Amino acid sequence: MNTIITVSREFGSGGRELSRRLARELGFDYYDREILTEIAKKTSLSEDYVRQVLEDKPHGLYPITTGRSFLYVDTQPLQQASAVFSAQQEIIRELAGKSSCVIVGRCADYILRDEHPFRIFVYASMESRIARTRSRAAEGETLTDKEYQKQIQSIDRARAKYYSFYTDMKWGDKYHYDLCINTTNQDIPKLVPYLAKMFM
Amino acid sequence: MNTIITVSREFGSGGRELSRRLARELGFDYYDREILTEIAKKTSLSEDYVRQVLEDKPHGLYPITTGRSFLYVDTQPLQQASAVFSAQQEIIRELAGKSSCVIVGRCADYILRDEHPFRIFVYASMESRIARTRSRAAEGETLTDKEYQKQIQSIDRARAKYYSFYTDMKWGDKYHYDLCINTTNQDIPKLVPYLAKMFM
Repeated sequence: MNTIITVSREFGSGGRELSRRLARELGFDYYDREILTEIAKKTSLSEDYVRQVLEDKPHGLYPITTGRSFLYVDTQPLQQASAVFSAQQEIIRELAGKSSCVIVGRCADYILRDEHPFRIFVYASMESRIARTRSRAAEGETLTDKEYQKQIQSIDRARAKYYSFYTDMKWGDKYHYDLCINTTNQDIPKLVPYLAKMFM
Repeated sequence: MNTIITVSREFGSGGRELSRRLARELGFDYYDREILTEIAKKTSLSEDYVRQVLEDKPHGLYPITTGRSFLYVDTQPLQQASAVFSAQQEIIRELAGKSSCVIVGRCADYILRDEHPFRIFVYASMESRIARTRSRAAEGETLTDKEYQKQIQSIDRARAKYYSFYTDMKWGDKYHYDLCINTTNQDIPKLVPYLAKMFM
């Protein structure tokens, strides 16, 4: 039977690095952004649009009705968002059926709940997430700590909103995960081999 | 340098079993109820009273002023509770200074914060905690699931109250721990050797 590990992560916590390293250590497949490409192919929507629906603008999933009569609501964005989520669901199930893997984000923990994946949540203190985000910033980017914090919080708010929209559960609530890892004082490359042993 | 692991745990989650096994696996000292005995010795209070202050009745820590004028408040219980906590603090610091160890509960994560212990929180679904509590019940005990749930919730409420009284932090909030382990679908004896490798 395939071992499926899903990783949800706060922005800047190093959850993606941890996932990639964990997959490599275990010789498992690793799925993250490539899922977007697959969804775009399946839905004939542009990859940018898919990313927007899944990452940047989950509030676009709600039809805007303010100031319009119900009959004039443009339901196309909502239908497209549903198509994106359906495609994502299908792709994630296909991938999980194919081989042991680590899947980052994308409500995979919820989509695969009947397969009982091992669900990890990676988080860290705001201070540590700001430091990490700064160390990975594009050259020439000069944001203040406050600006980074705003950016981080906005991305996490979007993730939380998207997750609860599709799963009806609270993102980051420890009861939805098997293991919650605080990377604040952790050396991720050092931690991963130990973590991997749990699945060997 | 000593490695200090502190474990906070929800009642019925198997946190105590996990701690004991982890200490044994690592060859570390293990401190749990024996701390009570030490406190009793240090304060000349009875072990039962110490247990009551630390486990059963943290609300006894608040002076009861209702219906009395301020001048007549009996501050003895509060003073004794403070003495108990001071003794506990001292003992935990002594133990942590002596050797590598696993310490269960007793705000040790907070008391030893300057030593940067590795802080674990162990939790589980209510269903699994009820099943575990039932499997460990005294012979002849015939409580319903609902009664077990009430018992579990009441113990955890007391732990949370006690913890936040002394630390000003929220008990079980994942940001105060390095690792949060959900034992719901876990086999604790199987899990511990992997966990132990993180500290070897």
